[in-house]
Amino acid sequence: DILERPEGLELGGDLREVTIMMSDIRGFTTLSEHLEPAQVVRMLNRYLGAMTDIIMAHQGTIDEFLGDAILAVFGAPLQRDDDADRAVRCAQAMQAAMAGINAENRAEGLPEVQTGIALNTGCVIAGNIGSERRSKYGFVGHPMNVTSRIEDHCAGGEILVADSTLQKLSGHYAVGDRRSLKVKGIHQPVVVHRLLEANS
Amino acid sequence: DILERPEGLELGGDLREVTIMMSDIRGFTTLSEHLEPAQVVRMLNRYLGAMTDIIMAHQGTIDEFLGDAILAVFGAPLQRDDDADRAVRCAQAMQAAMAGINAENRAEGLPEVQTGIALNTGCVIAGNIGSERRSKYGFVGHPMNVTSRIEDHCAGGEILVADSTLQKLSGHYAVGDRRSLKVKGIHQPVVVHRLLEANS
Repeated sequence: DILERPEGLELGGDLREVTIMMSDIRGFTTLSEHLEPAQVVRMLNRYLGAMTDIIMAHQGTIDEFLGDAILAVFGAPLQRDDDADRAVRCAQAMQAAMAGINAENRAEGLPEVQTGIALNTGCVIAGNIGSERRSKYGFVGHPMNVTSRIEDHCAGGEILVADSTLQKLSGHYAVGDRRSLKVKGIHQPVVVHRLLEANS
Repeated sequence: DILERPEGLELGGDLREVTIMMSDIRGFTTLSEHLEPAQVVRMLNRYLGAMTDIIMAHQGTIDEFLGDAILAVFGAPLQRDDDADRAVRCAQAMQAAMAGINAENRAEGLPEVQTGIALNTGCVIAGNIGSERRSKYGFVGHPMNVTSRIEDHCAGGEILVADSTLQKLSGHYAVGDRRSLKVKGIHQPVVVHRLLEANS
């Protein structure tokens, strides 16, 4: 996508408002200890394959897979008016896809898995980060860290949306369960809401 | 390296004992808020470029850059008898390189930075993780998470080595400051030692 649309790039580093998504499978590491390595990789790749397709269909940029965690942003390299809305719809589609993934897992005698998804919006530095020998389009800034902390509070099947993201939404979504989270390194509590449609 | 030595690969997933290294720059995100985005990326890339060269010279496998964080392993795809020793010497070389990096930062009017490095050894599942559209040689397992938690306790200029790594070392290194860390999701405390030569 980056190469297809070079007009959207500032590889030297620029400030972008993005909606950040972090997801991971609840308890995956513990689960993985009871399975053969090949089963773990097959289960993980089925999940990551389905999630990648959904994120790309919603024009998200996948920054990283880290084990079972996915880090993606909406709004870089290209900013669009509906970045936050696409991120929310993407998270909903990801949760909706879990039933099919778990049906395939069950059919192979593998355990069911549940994912938690955190969404947060803020300004980050986007740029081509790394070295001559290895670099990638990546992101730096407190909103990245905050998203990771919100993700720590997600239960399986849950989507937690930060206030910062809610304020950017044009669409209407049912939210509930306002929670105030203390985040290391951030003085003010981070306010998040549980998205109600998610996998309920 | 992977492509050069296909005999060392089991892309479907296998269990490997590896020494895991995580490093990051203390306070980098906060620092980055007081600089121009282009300065942040230049400073970050100088640092990551130097660290990449050192890690590769010690035959480490870089798994990921995540902002200013580096995740690398020693022992996959190829296992060698001195994986843990190379990881320790690599961490020492990384800390030793910081003086030169900071001299260049000062010369450009940029702030000095300090990095913390965590080392931990354990069995992880290594494999080609991701989807048809995007995959990478990656790692899954509690030792990965534990390394990240040890890293949270590193001060600038410090190398913290887990007991699991110390037990694998052939070389002699001066260590002190035994610390017992409580790690989320792990029942037993994780015992780490401060490596004394680091940047002292």
